[in-house]
Amino acid sequence: MAEQPESTSPFVSFLSDYGLTDEFVGVCKAVVLRAAPSARIIDITHGIPPFDVRAGALALARAVQYLPPGVVLAVVDPGVGTDRRAVAVEVEGGFLVGPDNGLLAPAVAMLGGARRVVSLTNPEYRLEAPGATFAGRDVFAPAAGYLAVGTPLEALGELVDPMSLVPGMVPLPSDEGGRAAGEVLWVDRYGNAQLNIDPGDLVALGVEPGGPLEVLCGHDKRTGRWVSSYAEAGPLELAVVVDSYGLVSLTFDRRPAAEELGLKAGSAVTLGPVTVEAGA
Amino acid sequence: MAEQPESTSPFVSFLSDYGLTDEFVGVCKAVVLRAAPSARIIDITHGIPPFDVRAGALALARAVQYLPPGVVLAVVDPGVGTDRRAVAVEVEGGFLVGPDNGLLAPAVAMLGGARRVVSLTNPEYRLEAPGATFAGRDVFAPAAGYLAVGTPLEALGELVDPMSLVPGMVPLPSDEGGRAAGEVLWVDRYGNAQLNIDPGDLVALGVEPGGPLEVLCGHDKRTGRWVSSYAEAGPLELAVVVDSYGLVSLTFDRRPAAEELGLKAGSAVTLGPVTVEAGA
Amino acid sequence: MAEQPESTSPFVSFLSDYGLTDEFVGVCKAVVLRAAPSARIIDITHGIPPFDVRAGALALARAVQYLPPGVVLAVVDPGVGTDRRAVAVEVEGGFLVGPDNGLLAPAVAMLGGARRVVSLTNPEYRLEAPGATFAGRDVFAPAAGYLAVGTPLEALGELVDPMSLVPGMVPLPSDEGGRAAGEVLWVDRYGNAQLNIDPGDLVALGVEPGGPLEVLCGHDKRTGRWVSSYAEAGPLELAVVVDSYGLVSLTFDRRPAAEELGLKAGSAVTLGPVTVEAGA
Repeated sequence: MAEQPESTSPFVSFLSDYGLTDEFVGVCKAVVLRAAPSARIIDITHGIPPFDVRAGALALARAVQYLPPGVVLAVVDPGVGTDRRAVAVEVEGGFLVGPDNGLLAPAVAMLGGARRVVSLTNPEYRLEAPGATFAGRDVFAPAAGYLAVGTPLEALGELVDPMSLVPGMVPLPSDEGGRAAGEVLWVDRYGNAQLNIDPGDLVALGVEPGGPLEVLCGHDKRTGRWVSSYAEAGPLELAVVVDSYGLVSLTFDRRPAAEELGLKAGSAVTLGPVTVEAGA
Repeated sequence: MAEQPESTSPFVSFLSDYGLTDEFVGVCKAVVLRAAPSARIIDITHGIPPFDVRAGALALARAVQYLPPGVVLAVVDPGVGTDRRAVAVEVEGGFLVGPDNGLLAPAVAMLGGARRVVSLTNPEYRLEAPGATFAGRDVFAPAAGYLAVGTPLEALGELVDPMSLVPGMVPLPSDEGGRAAGEVLWVDRYGNAQLNIDPGDLVALGVEPGGPLEVLCGHDKRTGRWVSSYAEAGPLELAVVVDSYGLVSLTFDRRPAAEELGLKAGSAVTLGPVTVEAGA
Repeated sequence: MAEQPESTSPFVSFLSDYGLTDEFVGVCKAVVLRAAPSARIIDITHGIPPFDVRAGALALARAVQYLPPGVVLAVVDPGVGTDRRAVAVEVEGGFLVGPDNGLLAPAVAMLGGARRVVSLTNPEYRLEAPGATFAGRDVFAPAAGYLAVGTPLEALGELVDPMSLVPGMVPLPSDEGGRAAGEVLWVDRYGNAQLNIDPGDLVALGVEPGGPLEVLCGHDKRTGRWVSSYAEAGPLELAVVVDSYGLVSLTFDRRPAAEELGLKAGSAVTLGPVTVEAGA
């Protein structure tokens, strides 16, 4: 998280898969504000697909470096009500609160790793509820609120070994005979498909900014061009661009590349220099 | 609403059927903040289906016990521009502002009932507008803002009899020959179907936590199991769980039960002990 | 923007086509708050269709008169990364920040016109980023935040001629043989279709409040009635109403008029007095 701003109101940044149709997000915010009336809440997003821990972890990792110091509240929690742990993780500049299922792990790593971790077991800092199905409201939001107002971490539960946290899964691209074999990490609103391939991987394969490259998605092989902005690509031209996170994205100008190419998160994509096939 | 937090900024909690695609919500917030620049607004939800007063009333009732003291602004208003009254209702801990069409009634009841009610007729606390189609902006948001900064209730219009408020409709389950005949109150983002049946109703019928039960939806009869968390149900197993509001919900683990069972808000569902049919 | 409220926290009102599924909006807010920790952000809407500058400009124009003084941050930016300018425009009561592509123009005009304009070129007030694809985060949000805390406009870049701003396109209706030929400006959540026709246009054609009129959409000719509220129209009755912005909207009570009539933003609609066709 960024350097300390001059504010006495603590920030709580909130990400979930709750969507905005139900009142889940509103109720969690109300609970945070009961514990921390001066807190200011930033919605990172609540549009993570239901139960999609990986998508939530990636979105949080993309956002975390821009967040102000304070508390991050993150809830994508298919195991709610089971024995998966609920944790608060102390990092440089603040705390992350959420289920211990890998959701927080990439963000924790980007922030320099966990200093201390507690399992959120102290019932004094939970809300009592008739059913154990809404830990965001009953466990995570109260913990975020109390941490925001300076409650000591260790008051919330017993300290656990930071090494015992469930790790995140960050897929790495592989070299496949002079090509970079990766996958789609994220399809954004505009249909751009972000890959787990960085521009250095392309340069190492002999592909150059401004130049052509080959894009393989399943059995579909196309030639694209490495451009520096979406609008530089023609509307019918497949292009790759270094996106705002420093990763390679597939794009068409103002057209949804992922839809055109049949891609979604997790789809395999291979990039490499343009080849000439025998007989072609 | 919850006990008074230590904050000098009044809270305005806002629920509507405006959605987030148009600028309706943003404009209403701006109007609240013009009247009450120090107010802090909590979005409960704006995803109530258009004109669905019952869904709005139920969502507000689910949320209201978690809200901080202050003002609740609620707008689901199919009768905008007609002679349906616009009201502000004084309750323990604050005020609720909205159309007098049953939307506020269950929340008012949960907060101990109406103390005083005014009809929002004073033009000094309304915005002038060329058309009478956006009462959220022109009538309700100004009232919420002025109440948030301490304007006396009676300044906003004439006092009316609290008994004259349009009542809410909370459907009750009925006993049908040893079964509980209820209906779906709410289908949430995850496809869980909350019923108007509470666990005591099931226990009274001889169904026990952890044990089997029969679920009738239309002509479909299935056997389910009473579990204590979503994840305890197998992916192919129909289950009932006591949800975070203390009501019985139908669920499959990580699968949308309502979709699988063809249920939506208002659908009839009957629960009871497992029976053995003659000849089966 | 409205008269100055008594608050020391500057307001930043934010409109975009980012949607709420990705973390774009949350990250931009975090960046604003890093520069301006005391700022309070009002989401106007983030549901503008991707790249739809006209829809964004119209929504901003509808909202702007209700916003508190401060900074407006508006991003609908199909030309991101190209040489389209990024600008901050000083107006009565505050600043508007966004791409110079017509998005800001109608709002600037409604606020009395631009006093001074800068091109946001000073790298000290931008975030460094690996790719030039997210100007909301890297260019516009920092500028909005710095302006909110009182950074002088001219620090953000070089002053440019206000007359050089890309103008907005506000379509005007035309008189077509005793009828008003206009178009749909906006279809709202409820399916009402706002036209670029005002009630004075209808009166000038001899149509009267409460009376009948003829509605032509493509080859479809229908008779409607001029009502004063949505609910005054019968469910099967096409009606026109003066909406909350003072423009004529097509409506059915609680039914989506735009869908029934096959209309979307930009569709041509002609209104006029009821005619009797020869032989009819």
